[in-house]
Amino acid sequence: MLKTHALSIASAGSPFEHTTIERRELRAHDVLIAIKFSGICHSDIHQAEGDWGGGIFPMVPGHEIAGIVTAVGSHVSVYSVGDRVGVGCLVDSCRMCEYCLSGEEQYCKRGAVYTYNALDYEGNPTYGGYSEQIVVDEEYVVRIPDTLGLDAAAPLLCAGITTYSPLKHWNAGSGMKVAIVGMGGLGHLGVQIAHAMGASVTVLSQGENKREEAFRFGADHYYATRNQTTFTELAGTFDLILNTVSANLDIDAYLSLLGVGGSLINVGLPAEPVAYHTFSILPRKSISGSSIGGIRETQEMLDFCAEHGIVPQIERIRADEVDQAWDRIKQGDVSYRFVIDMATLKQ
Amino acid sequence: MLKTHALSIASAGSPFEHTTIERRELRAHDVLIAIKFSGICHSDIHQAEGDWGGGIFPMVPGHEIAGIVTAVGSHVSVYSVGDRVGVGCLVDSCRMCEYCLSGEEQYCKRGAVYTYNALDYEGNPTYGGYSEQIVVDEEYVVRIPDTLGLDAAAPLLCAGITTYSPLKHWNAGSGMKVAIVGMGGLGHLGVQIAHAMGASVTVLSQGENKREEAFRFGADHYYATRNQTTFTELAGTFDLILNTVSANLDIDAYLSLLGVGGSLINVGLPAEPVAYHTFSILPRKSISGSSIGGIRETQEMLDFCAEHGIVPQIERIRADEVDQAWDRIKQGDVSYRFVIDMATLKQ
Repeated sequence: MLKTHALSIASAGSPFEHTTIERRELRAHDVLIAIKFSGICHSDIHQAEGDWGGGIFPMVPGHEIAGIVTAVGSHVSVYSVGDRVGVGCLVDSCRMCEYCLSGEEQYCKRGAVYTYNALDYEGNPTYGGYSEQIVVDEEYVVRIPDTLGLDAAAPLLCAGITTYSPLKHWNAGSGMKVAIVGMGGLGHLGVQIAHAMGASVTVLSQGENKREEAFRFGADHYYATRNQTTFTELAGTFDLILNTVSANLDIDAYLSLLGVGGSLINVGLPAEPVAYHTFSILPRKSISGSSIGGIRETQEMLDFCAEHGIVPQIERIRADEVDQAWDRIKQGDVSYRFVIDMATLKQ
Repeated sequence: MLKTHALSIASAGSPFEHTTIERRELRAHDVLIAIKFSGICHSDIHQAEGDWGGGIFPMVPGHEIAGIVTAVGSHVSVYSVGDRVGVGCLVDSCRMCEYCLSGEEQYCKRGAVYTYNALDYEGNPTYGGYSEQIVVDEEYVVRIPDTLGLDAAAPLLCAGITTYSPLKHWNAGSGMKVAIVGMGGLGHLGVQIAHAMGASVTVLSQGENKREEAFRFGADHYYATRNQTTFTELAGTFDLILNTVSANLDIDAYLSLLGVGGSLINVGLPAEPVAYHTFSILPRKSISGSSIGGIRETQEMLDFCAEHGIVPQIERIRADEVDQAWDRIKQGDVSYRFVIDMATLKQ
C-alpha cells in the first residue's frame, strides 16, 4: 500500500485533520497521480456535514482533481508518466451495463463508484482529492489539454461537466434562449459554456452585484430575481432554464419563464422537497434532473473548454485554509471556486 | 340569435337547471351542430365547483361534443349538412401565432377560447356541450369517422386527445415500456392508445379490481399500487409514465419506477401543489405536463382510434341524470365515461 498525506474529517461536521491514508498498489490498468490542485465543490460540504444523510467517515472529500501521472500499471495504454490528467466524480463502474457501454457511467446500473464517500466494488472506502496522490483505473482518468492550467482545470471536472452535460443534452445552441439561475461555481461555468455553444444566455441572479461579471462571462442579458418585475417581463421567454441553485426556489415562478415545451433542469440539489403546481407545467413544460456526465463526455467538455477559452474563476488557497473556505462557501462568499494547492499540504 | 335548450349551473356547486341559452347567428365560416352526445369530463366538475378558482356563471359545461351538422355558413368549405362532427375543448384561437400556425392551438399565445367557462374574443361567455345545439367555426370542428359511434366518439374529444397527444409526443411505440397510472376515463383510453401504438403497457391502479378489464383494453401487465412491493419490483422499469390521476400522488415513488432518462407526464390536474425531491429526477428523469392537443392532432387521433377500434367504455345517461352522474364520478363510481344522450334534454 502507498501512504499519502490527506485532509480528512473524522465525523459529520468536524474540522479537517491532516492525516495519512493508504492508496492501493498499482494494478495493471491503474495510474498513480500526483494531485496538484483539488477544487472545492459545495457537495463536499453537503456530504461532510451529513446534509444528504449517511456519510462514510473518516472522509477525504474532493472530486475535482487535477495532477500529473507519476507511475503507470503494466497494461496502461493511454497515459504515460508526466501526462497532465484529471479525475472527476467517478473512479469505477460496472463497465457492462447499457449506460457504461454508452459512455454514461454516471447512470451505471450497478451504481458507479464515486471518488469519495463511497465503497468500491471490493468494499473499501474511497478517498478523494484533498490529498497528495490518488490511484485510479485509466478508464476513469481524463486528459487535461495543454492550454488549460491545472488549477483552472480542476473545477471543470465536476462544476464544468455538471453544466455542460445538460446544456448539450437539451440542445443549447444557436437560436435557443437559455437562462442560467444562480451564478456561482456551477452557474458561472454554465454561462460560458452556453454562450460558447451559441445560445442566447440570460443570467438570473438574486441581486445586481454580478451583472458586470455575467456579461464578461458571455451573458447577453442579466436580471435580478429579487425584482418581481423580472418574472412578468420574462414570462414565457426561455427554451431552457438551468437551475444551479441548491436552495429551494419558487419553482412555479421559474416555470412561468419557460415557453411552451420548455425545460427547467435542476443541477443544484436542495435536500428539502420541491413543490410545483401541475398547472405550471401544463403547456408541455418539463422539470428535469441531470447528474454530472460520463467519462467520454467529461473529456469532450475539457476539450470544448480548452477550444473556447472557458475557465472557471478561481481563488487558490492553501491546505490549511480549507475550513475557512468552507465557511465562506456557506456564506456565499466565493468568486467563484476555491481550488486547494495540494503542494501546501505537507508544509 | 338562436335559442337552444341547455343544462346550466347558476353558481359554483349548484345543481343543474334546465335553461335556454342563445347561440350566435351563423357567420360565414360557422357550422351549426345538433349535439347528439356530450361526454362528462372530470374537469367539468372541477370548473363548476370552483376547484380551480374563478368560473364564469351561469355555466354550461361540456367539451366532449358529438353531433350532426344541421346548417353551414356561406363560406364553409369543409363540412356539409348531415356530416358527423365533433367539438372538443377549443372553439377559437388567434390563428396567427407560432402555435396556431403549427396546429397546436391549445398553446395559442393569445390564449385559445375554451368551449365553455371562457370568454370569446368579443367578450361573450362560451357555453359547452350540455346543450342541444352549438355554433362553431369550421376550423375548430373535427370529422367523426363513420366507424365510430357518436356516443363513443364524444369522450375521445377530450379524454382521447389528452392521452393520445403526450403518448405520441413522447414516442410511445415499439420497444417502449409505458405505464398508465389510473385506469379511469383517461386511463382506459391511454391503455388502448399506447397498446395500439405498439408500446408494452403496464397499468398501475390502486387495487386489483380492474385487472381483467385492463388486459381486455390491451395492457401487458397490471400492478396494484396499494401493494408496496409493486414499487420495489418495478423500480427503474419504465421509459414513460402517463399519470392520469387528479389526486396528489407520492410523485417520488412513481419517479423511482422510471429508467434513466424516463418521463413522467401528468395529465391529471391536482389543485394542490405536488412535491418531489430533486434526487428523484437526478438520472435525467423528467416531470412534464401536457394539455389536450391541437385540432389537427385531434382529427388524427379520431382517425387512429377508428383504424384501431379504440372506443371508450361508456354509460349513456339521460339529461336529468347528470347531477347524479357527477356524484358518482366524485365517488369514483363510473366505468369509464358518462355520456349524456342530448335527445333526452327536451323530454
